[in-house]
Amino acid sequence: MKLEAFLRPRSVAVIGASREPGKVGHRVLRNIVAGGFGGEVYPVNPKAEEILGMRCYRSVVEIPDDVDLGVIVVPAKLVPGIVEECGRKGVKGVVVISAGFSETGMEGLELERRIVEICRQYGIRMLGPNCLGIINTWEKMNASFSGASPMPGNIALVSQSGALGSAILNWAIDKNVGLSNFVSVGNEADLTSADFVEALAEDDRVRVIGLYVEGVKEGRRFVEVCEKVVRKKPIVALKAGKTEVGMRAVMSHTGSLAGYDVAFTAACRKAGVIRVERMEELFELVAGFGPQPPMRGRGVLIVTNGGGPGVLAADACEETGLQIPLLEEEIREKLGKSLPPHASVHNPVDLVGDADALRYRVALTAGLRSGKINGAIVIVTPQAMTPVEEIAEEILKVRRELGDKPILPVFMGIGGSPIEILRKNGLPNYEFPESAAFVMRKMYDYFVTVTAPEEEPPMKDIDEGAIAGVLEKASRERRAVLTIEECMKVAEACGIRMPPAGVAKSRGEAVEVAERIGYPVVLKVISPDIIHKTDVGGVVLNVKSAEEVERSYDTILRRVRVTMPEARIAGILVCKMVPTGKEVIVGSVRDVQFGPLVMFGLGGIYVNFLRDVSQRLCPLTQREVAEMIREIRAYPLLAGVRGEAPADIEALVDVILRVSSVMQRFERIVEMEINPLCVYEKGKGCLAVDMRITVEKGAE
Amino acid sequence: MKLEAFLRPRSVAVIGASREPGKVGHRVLRNIVAGGFGGEVYPVNPKAEEILGMRCYRSVVEIPDDVDLGVIVVPAKLVPGIVEECGRKGVKGVVVISAGFSETGMEGLELERRIVEICRQYGIRMLGPNCLGIINTWEKMNASFSGASPMPGNIALVSQSGALGSAILNWAIDKNVGLSNFVSVGNEADLTSADFVEALAEDDRVRVIGLYVEGVKEGRRFVEVCEKVVRKKPIVALKAGKTEVGMRAVMSHTGSLAGYDVAFTAACRKAGVIRVERMEELFELVAGFGPQPPMRGRGVLIVTNGGGPGVLAADACEETGLQIPLLEEEIREKLGKSLPPHASVHNPVDLVGDADALRYRVALTAGLRSGKINGAIVIVTPQAMTPVEEIAEEILKVRRELGDKPILPVFMGIGGSPIEILRKNGLPNYEFPESAAFVMRKMYDYFVTVTAPEEEPPMKDIDEGAIAGVLEKASRERRAVLTIEECMKVAEACGIRMPPAGVAKSRGEAVEVAERIGYPVVLKVISPDIIHKTDVGGVVLNVKSAEEVERSYDTILRRVRVTMPEARIAGILVCKMVPTGKEVIVGSVRDVQFGPLVMFGLGGIYVNFLRDVSQRLCPLTQREVAEMIREIRAYPLLAGVRGEAPADIEALVDVILRVSSVMQRFERIVEMEINPLCVYEKGKGCLAVDMRITVEKGAE
Repeated sequence: MKLEAFLRPRSVAVIGASREPGKVGHRVLRNIVAGGFGGEVYPVNPKAEEILGMRCYRSVVEIPDDVDLGVIVVPAKLVPGIVEECGRKGVKGVVVISAGFSETGMEGLELERRIVEICRQYGIRMLGPNCLGIINTWEKMNASFSGASPMPGNIALVSQSGALGSAILNWAIDKNVGLSNFVSVGNEADLTSADFVEALAEDDRVRVIGLYVEGVKEGRRFVEVCEKVVRKKPIVALKAGKTEVGMRAVMSHTGSLAGYDVAFTAACRKAGVIRVERMEELFELVAGFGPQPPMRGRGVLIVTNGGGPGVLAADACEETGLQIPLLEEEIREKLGKSLPPHASVHNPVDLVGDADALRYRVALTAGLRSGKINGAIVIVTPQAMTPVEEIAEEILKVRRELGDKPILPVFMGIGGSPIEILRKNGLPNYEFPESAAFVMRKMYDYFVTVTAPEEEPPMKDIDEGAIAGVLEKASRERRAVLTIEECMKVAEACGIRMPPAGVAKSRGEAVEVAERIGYPVVLKVISPDIIHKTDVGGVVLNVKSAEEVERSYDTILRRVRVTMPEARIAGILVCKMVPTGKEVIVGSVRDVQFGPLVMFGLGGIYVNFLRDVSQRLCPLTQREVAEMIREIRAYPLLAGVRGEAPADIEALVDVILRVSSVMQRFERIVEMEINPLCVYEKGKGCLAVDMRITVEKGAE
Repeated sequence: MKLEAFLRPRSVAVIGASREPGKVGHRVLRNIVAGGFGGEVYPVNPKAEEILGMRCYRSVVEIPDDVDLGVIVVPAKLVPGIVEECGRKGVKGVVVISAGFSETGMEGLELERRIVEICRQYGIRMLGPNCLGIINTWEKMNASFSGASPMPGNIALVSQSGALGSAILNWAIDKNVGLSNFVSVGNEADLTSADFVEALAEDDRVRVIGLYVEGVKEGRRFVEVCEKVVRKKPIVALKAGKTEVGMRAVMSHTGSLAGYDVAFTAACRKAGVIRVERMEELFELVAGFGPQPPMRGRGVLIVTNGGGPGVLAADACEETGLQIPLLEEEIREKLGKSLPPHASVHNPVDLVGDADALRYRVALTAGLRSGKINGAIVIVTPQAMTPVEEIAEEILKVRRELGDKPILPVFMGIGGSPIEILRKNGLPNYEFPESAAFVMRKMYDYFVTVTAPEEEPPMKDIDEGAIAGVLEKASRERRAVLTIEECMKVAEACGIRMPPAGVAKSRGEAVEVAERIGYPVVLKVISPDIIHKTDVGGVVLNVKSAEEVERSYDTILRRVRVTMPEARIAGILVCKMVPTGKEVIVGSVRDVQFGPLVMFGLGGIYVNFLRDVSQRLCPLTQREVAEMIREIRAYPLLAGVRGEAPADIEALVDVILRVSSVMQRFERIVEMEINPLCVYEKGKGCLAVDMRITVEKGAE
C-alpha cells in the first residue's frame, strides 16, 4: 500500500507534544490516544517527563523503537531541525501541522523549501506544512487537532483548506456520516492531493473520494492519477477560485497557484472527476456514492406519500436529464390492486397521505423490478399518522432484497430516529427532493464514465521534422509569433488543409501568385500590428483578374496607410478564394498546470458574444472531440437545420485531433488558433482559412 | 382586516370533533386547545357529550354564541349538510379539512361545487376542501391536524400541497424558524392563495410570504394582488410542475389547473414575486428576508476565519452578480493595525484560524461602514479554539449598532448553542456560503423591485374600430386564422409598419400590384396549408420587372404543385422588397390563466435552435420591454458589434408595446406573431415583413 506511513502507521511520534490542554500539541496527542490508536505513541518534548501518562522523549532520536510517522507541532523556525532529526531517526513520514511557511510570504517559502530538501535528502515524505493533520478512522488514528472524530465509513476527504476541512469534519460528525479518511494537505510542499488520491484508491474501505481544491500542483499528474482511480471509485471535487475575486483571495491566502478555472474543469472532464459547484453538493454526493449500487440508466421511480413533493422530484429529475418512465401496464395493474383507489400508480407513484410502510414496500418492489427503472427516490412527508420509522426500516429491507439499484430516501422535515436508522445502515437522507435528483444524475454520469470503453488518443501522422524546423527558426530569431508562411508550413506538416496562397511583396509578385493558384483570389494585408484585417480595409475579396489584383494590391496599401499609418506591413497574402462554409474556430492554449487545452466553437458572434464554446484537455480522443462538437449550443447549425445539408463533422473531428497532436508533441507551441476553419458539406472536408501560432520566445 | 374569521377568529367550532386520539377530528381540537387559543372553542359531534373536558354540541346550530370559524372534519358526503348548518348558524368562515372532492374525480368535483354554492348562498367563505388547516401563531390558533406547532415569527407560508405543507411546518419547527401563519389552501374551491396573500399583507407581524404553488386559479387576480403586496413585503414562490412529467403528476393529483410554467414565470416577474427553483431556496429566502434591513446595492463584505470558505463565498457572490469591492484604503489601514499580520485586509477579510470575537467585531464594524459595502456575509469555521458562541453574540451586537445593512451568518459545520443564539434573535444561519450569497442576491433584487418607480403601461394609439371590423368578419365566417390582407389591416390599425403589398390571383394582378408598389418586389405563395413558404419553393426574391413577375408567378405555382400537391392556394402575395435588417420575432399568446404573454427573440436560428427568447406578461411597460430586449443572449447583435451601427431599439420597443396593447384590448385574439420584424439602423425604424394572427373561432 502506498503512503503506508500516513494511512497505516504502526507507530507515531508527536513532536511538540504539550502538557497544556489548550495547545495544539496537546490536542493532537490526546486525539491519537483517545481515538484508541492501536500502535505505539511517543510524545516528544524536551521540557516534559510525561504527558497524558506516557513517557515523553527529549528528541525523536531518543525513541528506542522504529517510528513510522512523526507529527510535528513546533514553531515554524524549529521545523527544519526536527525534520533533520526525523531523518536521522529513520522516520518514514512527517505531518507538519505547524504554520508559518509559504502561506505567509517569501521568508516562509524559503523555510518550506528547506524542509522539503531535508525530506528529499533522507527519503522522508511530508504532509503539510500548515495543515490540520490526518485521520484514518478504521485505524483509529486521529492525528489532527480537530475537536472530535467522525465515525468510520467509506468516504475519504482530502482538503487543501484547513478551515474548510474543519467544517467538513464537523459536518460529518453532526450528520453521522462515516468517513474512512480525512487528510488536510495544507501547503502540499511534498505530498499532494493526487498522492493521497492514488494511495486511497488501493484501500477497499474507501468507496468515494471527496476533494476540496484551491490550486492543483502538478496538474498532469493529478489528471493521470484521477483518470486511473475513477475507474475504481468516484472522485468528487469542489474547487474554490472560480471567479476573479475568488482568485484574488486564493492567491492571497495560500502559496498555491490557482490554475485557470477552465483548465481545471477540462481536467476534471478528462479524468472523469465529478466537479461540483457548491459545498453542499460535495456533501450530498459523497454521502450518496458511498453505499449505493450503480445507477445504470436514466429511469427514476419516484414513490411518495404526497403529490407536491413528488412533482418537485419529477421536475428536478427531468431538469437534470433523468427520466420518469411510465411503468409497464402489468406493474400498474398490480399496484392498482394493492394500493387504495385514490393512489396514483403512474410514476411518480403517489401512495397518498395515509400511506403505511407496506404501501411503500409494494410500490418499491414492484417499481424497482421494472426494466425501465434504474433507481428510486423515496419521499416521505410527515403527515397525520405517517409511521416514519417503519418506513425507514422497510426501505432498508427492500434495499437488502433488491440491492442492485440505488434507492435515495427523502424524508422531508423529519429528523431523529428514522434518519438514524438509515444512517446506521449506511444510507444517507436527503432533506429535499432536488438534492436526491442531483445525486441520482451524478451517479448515472459516473456509471457512463466507468463503463465507457477506454480509448487511446489517436496519434495523427505529422511531419515532425518540418514543424521542428519552423520552430527552431523562430526560436533562433527570438520571435514569439509565427509568420503566415510558417503557419502554412505547420498546417501542411500537420495535415490540415489551407487554401493555396502565397505572399507578395510587390504588385508583380501578387499577380504571379494569383496566376499560379488560379482565380478568384483574396488579397489580405500581412502585418504583425493588425489583428482585425477587415476593420482597417486590409482585405479584398473575390479578385478575378490580374488587373484587379494590381488594383486591389494598391487599394489595400492605401487604405491601411490611412487607417493605421504606423502598422508595419510584411506583404500581401494572395490566397485562393474559398467557397462559403460553416465557419468554426479551433484553438488551443497551453495551461501552466494542465498542459494544452483545445477550444472549439462556431465562428463569428457565437464565440465572441455568446461565448458558446467547448473545451477539453489534450491528448484528445475521438469520443472527446465528438462530445466537444455536440456540446455547443449552436450545434444544430452544424448538424443541419431546416433541410440544410449537415456539415462534414468527420473532417472537423480530424482537424481538432491534429491540433491536439501537434500541441501534445511540441511543447514550445504556446497557442494555436485556426479562425475561421470553413467546414463544408458532409464529404467535402474543411479548409483552415487563417491560422495563428505563438511559440515560446527563444532564450536571449 | 380581510379574512378576519380565518386569521383572527374569536370563536371556533370543530365540527366532527372526535374522542379518539388517533383521529384527525381529535387532533384538530386538541391542537386548538393545546396551543392556548384565547377565544371560545366548541366541539361539535352528535354522538359525544364531552371531548377533552369540553361540552360537545350535537350540531353547530345548537351553539349558544356566535361562531366565527367552523373547522369541518367529517366525511366528504356529509360536508354539504354541515356547511348548510353553518350558513344557518351565521358562521363567517369554514375550513374544510375533509378530503374526497375535486382531487378524486368527477363525483368529488360535483360535491365540491355544491358546497361552494351553499357557501355563496349564505355568504360564507371557505378554506379548502382537502387541506391541512390553518395556523396563526400570534393568535395561538392551531386549527390544523399537524403534529406540532411552530414558534411565532414573521414568516407566513401558504401551501397548495398538504404533504409539502406538513414538511414545511416540520422544517420550521426543527430549525426553530418562527412563522406567523401557515395556511394550507387545499383545492382552493373558494378562497385562493391570492386571497390569503392579500389578507396577510395587512398584518405587520408578517414580514415575508412564502408560497408553494401547483396551479394558479384566477391568474390575473394573482398577479394584481401580488403586485400590490410586493411593495410592502417580499413574496417568494416555489412552483411544482415545471417539466412535462411534473405536469402529469400535478394533473393527476389535484383538481387544479397547472398554468403554463412560462406564463407563471412571466407572472412572477410582472408582480415582482421572487420565484425559486428548489424547495431549499424557498426556506433559505423566507428565513433570510424576515429579519433583515434592505440590501441596497451589490457590494458584499465577506468576513471569515478561513480562506477556503471565504473564496467559496466570493465565487458564489460574483456568480450571482454581486460584487466584492476592495475596501477603501483607510479602512484597510485601520484593519491592518487591529488585525494580526497574517490576516488579509482585502475583501474577503480573512481573520485567520485563531480569530476571536473581537476580530470579527473590528472587521464587521469597519467594513460595514464602507460606502462600497451594502451587506455582509460572516463565515465562522470551527477551528482549534474558535469561540463560536461569543462570535454569535458579537454579530448580534454589531447588528444592533449598525442595523441598516443586512448581515448573513454562515457558521459552517457548527450546530447547537451559537445557532440557537442567532435564532432567538431572529437571525437565520446558513450552513453553506453559497446559500448566503444566493439570499443576498435575492434581497438586492427585491430592493431594486420595490424602489423602481411605478410605471403605467403606455396605451398606444390604435384604430380599434378597424380591428374590431376585421375580427367580426373572421368570426362571422368562423375562421380562426386571419388572411394576410386582414393581418395587414390589423398592422395598419395598430401603427405597425409593413412593406407595401397586395394579393394577386392571376399573373396580371401580380404585375399590377408590382407596378403600383414599385420594383424590386418579392412574390410569396399564400396558403393556409403552408407554414414554411421557402421550404416548398414558394418564395421568389428580388423580382425586378413585369416580365420577371409573370415568370416568378408561374414558377411558384409550379413548384408548390410539385412539393405540396394538396395545398390550397389562396393567391400570391406581391410585396415590396425590403432592405436587409436585423431580423427579430415578436409574438404573443394568450394564456388561459394569466392572459396575453409577449415573446421576443432574434430571428432565425436564435429562436428556433438556441431558444434565446424573453417573455413578459401584458400589459407591458416601457421598462419591461427594454428589459426583454436586453435580456436575450444575442442582444449584442442588436446593440451593434464590431463597429456595426446599433439597431433602432426605440422603434422595436414601440412595436412590442403595440402588440401588447392590441392583445390587451382584443381578447378574441389568441395568438399574434410578427416574423420576421426587420429592425434597421437607429433612426430608421422597423418593418413587419410577415404576420400571423389567430383568433377565437366564432360560435357555430
